[in-house]
Amino acid sequence: MAIIEEKLEKLGLVLPEKLKAPSGMPLPFSPVRIIGNRAIISGHGPQNPDGTVQQGQGKVGNEISVGIAQSAARDTALSILASLKRELGDLDRITAWVKVFGMVNADPTFPAHPVVINGFSDLILELWGIEAGGHSRSAIGVASLPFGMYVEIEGEVLID
Amino acid sequence: MAIIEEKLEKLGLVLPEKLKAPSGMPLPFSPVRIIGNRAIISGHGPQNPDGTVQQGQGKVGNEISVGIAQSAARDTALSILASLKRELGDLDRITAWVKVFGMVNADPTFPAHPVVINGFSDLILELWGIEAGGHSRSAIGVASLPFGMYVEIEGEVLID
Amino acid sequence: MAIIEEKLEKLGLVLPEKLKAPSGMPLPFSPVRIIGNRAIISGHGPQNPDGTVQQGQGKVGNEISVGIAQSAARDTALSILASLKRELGDLDRITAWVKVFGMVNADPTFPAHPVVINGFSDLILELWGIEAGGHSRSAIGVASLPFGMYVEIEGEVLID
Repeated sequence: MAIIEEKLEKLGLVLPEKLKAPSGMPLPFSPVRIIGNRAIISGHGPQNPDGTVQQGQGKVGNEISVGIAQSAARDTALSILASLKRELGDLDRITAWVKVFGMVNADPTFPAHPVVINGFSDLILELWGIEAGGHSRSAIGVASLPFGMYVEIEGEVLID
Repeated sequence: MAIIEEKLEKLGLVLPEKLKAPSGMPLPFSPVRIIGNRAIISGHGPQNPDGTVQQGQGKVGNEISVGIAQSAARDTALSILASLKRELGDLDRITAWVKVFGMVNADPTFPAHPVVINGFSDLILELWGIEAGGHSRSAIGVASLPFGMYVEIEGEVLID
Repeated sequence: MAIIEEKLEKLGLVLPEKLKAPSGMPLPFSPVRIIGNRAIISGHGPQNPDGTVQQGQGKVGNEISVGIAQSAARDTALSILASLKRELGDLDRITAWVKVFGMVNADPTFPAHPVVINGFSDLILELWGIEAGGHSRSAIGVASLPFGMYVEIEGEVLID
């Protein structure tokens, strides 16, 4: 069995099905775009196991706790891994994480975006280790996100 | 005649002149930066045909309708194509769209950023087709944009 | 002596020490990620010479002046140069600036993000010149930033 998927199974984590976008919301772009050995990852948010979006209401740091947002960031990692698996066939083809850009649907005074996005980074590091899983990262607060999602994350990986 | 420009002409679309930035606002960077076969596109907004910025006032989703914002996203595509043409000489040199990052000057509760940025993606796909025009994409809401613009978009393409 | 560092010294500029993150804020990612000849720069903010973060309170354009924010952008350049020096050993290994993404912790009506981020670009151009120091750039206003920082900047450079 593939190494990364075996690790996911041991952690009891399940990748969501393909994104079912809310109706009236066509998304005419690729979840992952392959350019040579670069795989460019579109903005993803947290999904339910059946592929539907975890829509939200309220701002992180105000109505929404850091814990809930961190969990949304971890679920966003699963959404991204699911898209990468569909595109690459096997997650073991990922040889290095390059970049992660984490956007939090946060209150104007929220100061702890890195803690939220750690929900994403910690899982990637657990799965790939520090050498291949290490990445550059930014974490910021945005004014709003599609469907009220608490987190949206995009990035880039290198593939074999 | 160049293929892409012929398509633009058939659509009745005209590329704006070189950006005329508002006074007191020096912009010391390249609209497009070429690095090998990568062309990295700076943040652009909607321009008028004479090159001036379409300045705005108000937030998308509140004072500003989705339709107006979508039209601004389409005009931003024209701004970017104009910069690419000035830099590359011929838009047919673009062999693949890589990435599009779409930022909407939106209300904190706005949920439909993808619909706005589709004004950009739909035109690119119409001009280049799904193979070369396909791209990874993120769409988010930001707190404010230069000159009150409703949309700012940056991206990357591959060139010949 | 290295060329860029000599220029920094002539300008009387000192690079800050390694980032001392506020307590309870683990940052499990690389300040700079090297992928072949690309160096991908994580989101940085302004630091004090001892490496601590210049935390802030208030929004640029409202409580915080453009001048203060511009100075924060210049200090962010120093933070980034310090990280690049630690990673590369010598700043002269940077052969080209590729991309700069500048985020301002701004008021919803703030229109002058480019002026703020010029605090960053002007220094880079002074140090590397227009050929190697030229870069693509975006400047936007975000809803909030870690630790209340007034500016966060990420980017990419090419290395030898």
